[in-house]
Amino acid sequence: MSEPGGRTAADRLLAVLAAFDHAHPALTLTDVSRRAGLTLPTAHRLVGMLAAWGALERDESGAYRIGLRLLELAALAPRGLVLREAAMPFLEDLFEATHENVQLAVRDNAEVVYVERLAGRSAVGVRTQVGARWPLHATGVGLVLLAHSPAGFQDGYLAGPLESFTAHTVTEPRRLRRMLAEVRHSGCAVSERQITDDALSVAAPIRGPHGDVVASVSVVVHAEGARPNALIPAVRVAGAGISRALGWQPPIGASA
Amino acid sequence: MSEPGGRTAADRLLAVLAAFDHAHPALTLTDVSRRAGLTLPTAHRLVGMLAAWGALERDESGAYRIGLRLLELAALAPRGLVLREAAMPFLEDLFEATHENVQLAVRDNAEVVYVERLAGRSAVGVRTQVGARWPLHATGVGLVLLAHSPAGFQDGYLAGPLESFTAHTVTEPRRLRRMLAEVRHSGCAVSERQITDDALSVAAPIRGPHGDVVASVSVVVHAEGARPNALIPAVRVAGAGISRALGWQPPIGASA
Repeated sequence: MSEPGGRTAADRLLAVLAAFDHAHPALTLTDVSRRAGLTLPTAHRLVGMLAAWGALERDESGAYRIGLRLLELAALAPRGLVLREAAMPFLEDLFEATHENVQLAVRDNAEVVYVERLAGRSAVGVRTQVGARWPLHATGVGLVLLAHSPAGFQDGYLAGPLESFTAHTVTEPRRLRRMLAEVRHSGCAVSERQITDDALSVAAPIRGPHGDVVASVSVVVHAEGARPNALIPAVRVAGAGISRALGWQPPIGASA
Repeated sequence: MSEPGGRTAADRLLAVLAAFDHAHPALTLTDVSRRAGLTLPTAHRLVGMLAAWGALERDESGAYRIGLRLLELAALAPRGLVLREAAMPFLEDLFEATHENVQLAVRDNAEVVYVERLAGRSAVGVRTQVGARWPLHATGVGLVLLAHSPAGFQDGYLAGPLESFTAHTVTEPRRLRRMLAEVRHSGCAVSERQITDDALSVAAPIRGPHGDVVASVSVVVHAEGARPNALIPAVRVAGAGISRALGWQPPIGASA
């Protein structure tokens, strides 16, 4: 079952892909070899394979970048572009209603991953982009996803070191636990000046067909002068709409 | 420089990824082994590696699907989500102005690849999704991209067999050549009932910093009762706006 050398070659191929990230979207062959810990000939061979396959493309300067073939594969990710496709009409409605930043996110272990963002040109600057990751406790969508995660996971997360981003970031486990209970009770999360000093987000859960929370939708606005109470209904309605599009049916007699 | 067995293992890893497509977004281990032409133990080992890395995820039924890690990588693709990020505000404007399907596409050799789509809920049903591919001659965005491709490429494309999708699809090389000249002259393409019998699209070019056409934006509407002349200015303005966001500057004295 084991194929000596084989396992290593496949690992190396993944190491080449892993060399690319938001801080390093374009790499020369030398960059790849250094970042992936490969000899130049090996990097050359693997980059050539990946380019021939379409996972990498060469830009005008000769550097390598992520290619269209990976975009096509990513379009098949159920928690990425499939979720996005179901959510998009509702995100557009939310954007038209608010003209603020609208975000769609899922939980990947201890982090939020943004799978969609509609950004108003005059809306508050937001430190997210598609594919970006943030810790759960510091964002509205993260609070929603943490509030609905398994109890054991929550305990572990709250016990761990919790990063602070502004003077307002809540990192005290007991206070966070109360906030999570409130998120479950109210059906939404309000996160104010937790990641940057000027932003406030309102987030609501998105449920899958079995009622479990699979994603979260949020609107991010300027904290100064924000009226979260005016945003909450719109965000909750969008969350319920996306949930229905995913096959969720609200329990009889319950509010969405 | 060559490492016998190594090349094979990396190839096999890509074969596992290539087993997933729009018709096969979820695969069991047996499916993977059959579609990738691998023994079950080899498929098991490679799928395990890809799942540990985050390129694959297991769903509730135990089948494998594309994972979030590939979405994150795809977000780095300059012709994918990077282009999309620059284009999004203009696509949103176009969507708000028309409430019709808005699409963003690039050329990959002889095909159009859609990198973004905003779909109106009441808009015409469109046979595209993000990551989908269509031949160049049968879509508005494809005509724009073909019209601005190198002359040698155009000759080869028009000489090849051109697929017909409806009774209206233009596949006659001489007529297509006239249409492409008109697209270059007018700065937009109108494609009527070429892919489906009920849709009409209006597309405009998107230029990169050096003036070359790098993408195309379109609006797709019901062919019945469509007034393309009313859509052309909006689509051209969106194309010019995205071009500027990418660093393009219109030549002095020229129209956008």
